[in-house]
Amino acid sequence: MISGRFDGHFQKEPGLERSNLIVELAAATRDLPAASMALAERDVRAGLLEAIAAALDAARVEIITTTAEETALLPAELEPEFDRMTGTLRMFAALVREGSWVRAAIDMPNSHSQREGAGGRTNTGAPPLIGPNHDIRRMLVPLGPVAVFGASNFPLAYGVCGGDTASALAAGCPVIVKEHPAHPKTGRLIHRITFAAAAGVGAAGALGYIHNEDPTDHSVAKALVQHAAVAAAGFTGSTRGGIAIHNLAATRTSRDGTPDPIPVFAEMGSCNVIIVLRHAFNRHAEAIADEVAASLLARVGQQCTAPSVMLIAGYDKAEWMYTALADRIARAPKRRMLSSSVAANYYARLDEVMASGAIEDHTTYPSPAERDASLGVPVVLYTQAVKMEDAPRLWDEIFGPGLIVAGCGSMAHGYFCTPKALTVAVYAEAEDLAADDTALLDEAFIGTTVEIVREVRQRAGRIVFNGVTTGVRVCTSTVHGGPFPATNRPDTTAVGPLAIERWCRPLCFQNCPDALLPPELQDANPLGIWRMVNGRPTREPVCRGGV
Amino acid sequence: MISGRFDGHFQKEPGLERSNLIVELAAATRDLPAASMALAERDVRAGLLEAIAAALDAARVEIITTTAEETALLPAELEPEFDRMTGTLRMFAALVREGSWVRAAIDMPNSHSQREGAGGRTNTGAPPLIGPNHDIRRMLVPLGPVAVFGASNFPLAYGVCGGDTASALAAGCPVIVKEHPAHPKTGRLIHRITFAAAAGVGAAGALGYIHNEDPTDHSVAKALVQHAAVAAAGFTGSTRGGIAIHNLAATRTSRDGTPDPIPVFAEMGSCNVIIVLRHAFNRHAEAIADEVAASLLARVGQQCTAPSVMLIAGYDKAEWMYTALADRIARAPKRRMLSSSVAANYYARLDEVMASGAIEDHTTYPSPAERDASLGVPVVLYTQAVKMEDAPRLWDEIFGPGLIVAGCGSMAHGYFCTPKALTVAVYAEAEDLAADDTALLDEAFIGTTVEIVREVRQRAGRIVFNGVTTGVRVCTSTVHGGPFPATNRPDTTAVGPLAIERWCRPLCFQNCPDALLPPELQDANPLGIWRMVNGRPTREPVCRGGV
Repeated sequence: MISGRFDGHFQKEPGLERSNLIVELAAATRDLPAASMALAERDVRAGLLEAIAAALDAARVEIITTTAEETALLPAELEPEFDRMTGTLRMFAALVREGSWVRAAIDMPNSHSQREGAGGRTNTGAPPLIGPNHDIRRMLVPLGPVAVFGASNFPLAYGVCGGDTASALAAGCPVIVKEHPAHPKTGRLIHRITFAAAAGVGAAGALGYIHNEDPTDHSVAKALVQHAAVAAAGFTGSTRGGIAIHNLAATRTSRDGTPDPIPVFAEMGSCNVIIVLRHAFNRHAEAIADEVAASLLARVGQQCTAPSVMLIAGYDKAEWMYTALADRIARAPKRRMLSSSVAANYYARLDEVMASGAIEDHTTYPSPAERDASLGVPVVLYTQAVKMEDAPRLWDEIFGPGLIVAGCGSMAHGYFCTPKALTVAVYAEAEDLAADDTALLDEAFIGTTVEIVREVRQRAGRIVFNGVTTGVRVCTSTVHGGPFPATNRPDTTAVGPLAIERWCRPLCFQNCPDALLPPELQDANPLGIWRMVNGRPTREPVCRGGV
Repeated sequence: MISGRFDGHFQKEPGLERSNLIVELAAATRDLPAASMALAERDVRAGLLEAIAAALDAARVEIITTTAEETALLPAELEPEFDRMTGTLRMFAALVREGSWVRAAIDMPNSHSQREGAGGRTNTGAPPLIGPNHDIRRMLVPLGPVAVFGASNFPLAYGVCGGDTASALAAGCPVIVKEHPAHPKTGRLIHRITFAAAAGVGAAGALGYIHNEDPTDHSVAKALVQHAAVAAAGFTGSTRGGIAIHNLAATRTSRDGTPDPIPVFAEMGSCNVIIVLRHAFNRHAEAIADEVAASLLARVGQQCTAPSVMLIAGYDKAEWMYTALADRIARAPKRRMLSSSVAANYYARLDEVMASGAIEDHTTYPSPAERDASLGVPVVLYTQAVKMEDAPRLWDEIFGPGLIVAGCGSMAHGYFCTPKALTVAVYAEAEDLAADDTALLDEAFIGTTVEIVREVRQRAGRIVFNGVTTGVRVCTSTVHGGPFPATNRPDTTAVGPLAIERWCRPLCFQNCPDALLPPELQDANPLGIWRMVNGRPTREPVCRGGV
């Protein structure tokens, strides 16, 4: 529901009923070519992101009030999420204005003397020539319009103007957002606000919105990802939903029946594991219990980075931690989940865990009779890591405030099973790092921190030390991603500046006259950006010399 | 067919019959964990690449002789391809030794004063803090074992030790190569040589090889891309083959039936277009005809960058070019194609073009009766660009020495139809760049170079000026890729240093003790590599200060 010719209110009635899908899609896609052209100017892109952030700031109270009512998330939880949303928009604006993100690279033709080198670098420092002696220049360019499928659990930071939208607009890609049925009021409010902001900077068609208030109606998602005008998609949500979008995108066809796949970046479910080593436990057990309980309870456990499994070195320590966590969560106020279907899925997942037969203790586990459909009751379950080795379903995400605490007699029973995930956390002290700790078998604990890190780094996108898995800093180095099933694209991140590259492809120019090059690649480097020139980073201009 | 326990000769007989697939796969995958561990050391990776290059150099004459006999490519064509193969291996060795390719990035915790900034950068130059104030450090890490499906047409540069293998080994990924049925002798010879080289540097299991001499046997490709030990795949070949591998990889499942997709990088068919503008034609027509004819005839047209369509501004000019090219190709010696099936596909494709009814002149087109199954007869066909607008099949690749020359009354009839491709070339003079050239309608030519470049850059991976589409320089800026159908992964390149990133994913460490960090991310920067520190490139060490 958007185009330059609408005012942001598509439906005739103030209610939430969805307008005709075909009409909405036509309206949302009609102005994409004009929007793409507008977004080709980096000042327009940066100005748009800043205007959206300012417009959202001006409506801060209304947005947070609306979202809190619709999602049962607390204003205290939504305040930092709001700041992250606007902070991310401004971060990408700054990235676009600075300009070096395009990864500009220039290889000048080698001079005659340089060409005589063989192997490694030549005497002059330039790499040896392979192939014809062309002038080659490369930068990132936008893929085209992006369909954004936001998350249920982060209505702001992964919503209409969340990370996918901000990074795609920054790259120069117009965006069409599919409404999330878990918070249509929030989505429409944000879209109305940002629509006006976009129109104000001459990029009205850059941010579209398609209604989808019925959670059982998948026709909207299907039509959007298969639309010929859509060049890529971003998804945040369940594994099932992500796989469905991934498959639709990978196998879609043109009108004439020929294949026409597009890239999808799906950030999905993740079983995040927290590992606690011996000395760390001995020194900080109470503090760790406090941190983990808070991490589990925040947002009713509805975070992709929330822990699902906790591995503790030593059975006695694990039992202590289990009891400590059970005490803490029992004292927490009972809270509603995002929706009754989210709550139902949470309990179904707990039941699946219990049905494995591997759980030894479960005092907080509510029987079906004890459950309130609207509430997400926090649960900790106890077992031994050795019992989880042959139970792969125990290593799936528990979406909600549920945690399996597992004691490890030998750490080898635990960390070799850790699943592919967004995040893994390790609590370790300096003594836990010592290599000769392998000799201390008094607790039958054979895993050293070095070995554990070597192992888990093969399976996670982010490794946290002495802290919980929740709480993501948004910065250049951030990786919010990981191997499947955490995502379908382990080569990227959904958070941080690097996310802009998902919506781009490299393009190179061979022997191109300076006047035809984008400013990023011109000899004089008029934007003053960092570029790789003959394989080395520099902000200096280049001189074509004898070419 | 490989493992550390074999000597490179698997089959009992000297013939080419394939051994049992299951046994071969088991042998090739058994030592992958050990190979991955060996390749984790950058000195091993660089040493392996250098050892392979040296071993190939020592067998240069034998390899080129074997390949020329098997593929009908000329030694004069294979000599530069051989140099490109070894040059690429050494280029990646140098990249690995230098080390900055891992895109190391470090974000230190902001100090209290820095946190007070809002929007843009703080007074101290650091970006404002978004989220918790962690120390975050990121670098690229290998995806895991890679299956390589080499090309028929570049038995060396895209073969057993071609670009995919070199870039994957450089990234730290062991490789298993599927034999190409078009040149099994070349493949086995190179594998035998490189197997010994790999064993010599302690990485014997890093380069596997599976026999597949029967071109109708697709079971090998299927088993390899679906093997649980394989984490990614590289493919170079036809669109049909690439799509098949892409779909198998996107929809593969684990033993328990859950989805287990892996990334595939397929570089496929490409319809490369050469555009000749008015002034460029007037000044250089003969030279352009010489260049394009040579580009078409080289390697019997069997290059992914060979031109399939040539658009000329002006009907009279196009007719002249058609005649000039027909003369030149008629004088060329008749040559065998890679195989009789490649030749059969070439003629089938020409017949498809003719069946469109859009071709106006075709003096060089051989009737079925005039064809020799072993030869690829060069063909140029003439039409008007306006007739190609509604004939999408004319914009598909012609794999072989076939070219459609199309005259453009208005350039708008041509360049708006150019397909998504690896490469497009534009011949233009300074006068063709002038914006007021739009007013010069004496030849009904309305496209200026600026407009044409703006249009074609949306659809190509490489734009060439005043040169042919063939001939790729291997350097930092090279992009050998493009939107589908040229590739299934427009975000990457199959040639040049950037290709190493295809086999990697980013991993980040949060608040990690220095002793546990890889050297690339340690405070002291012991490798002296370029890193992004607090968002800015530097080779300086970092100091944790008050953290």
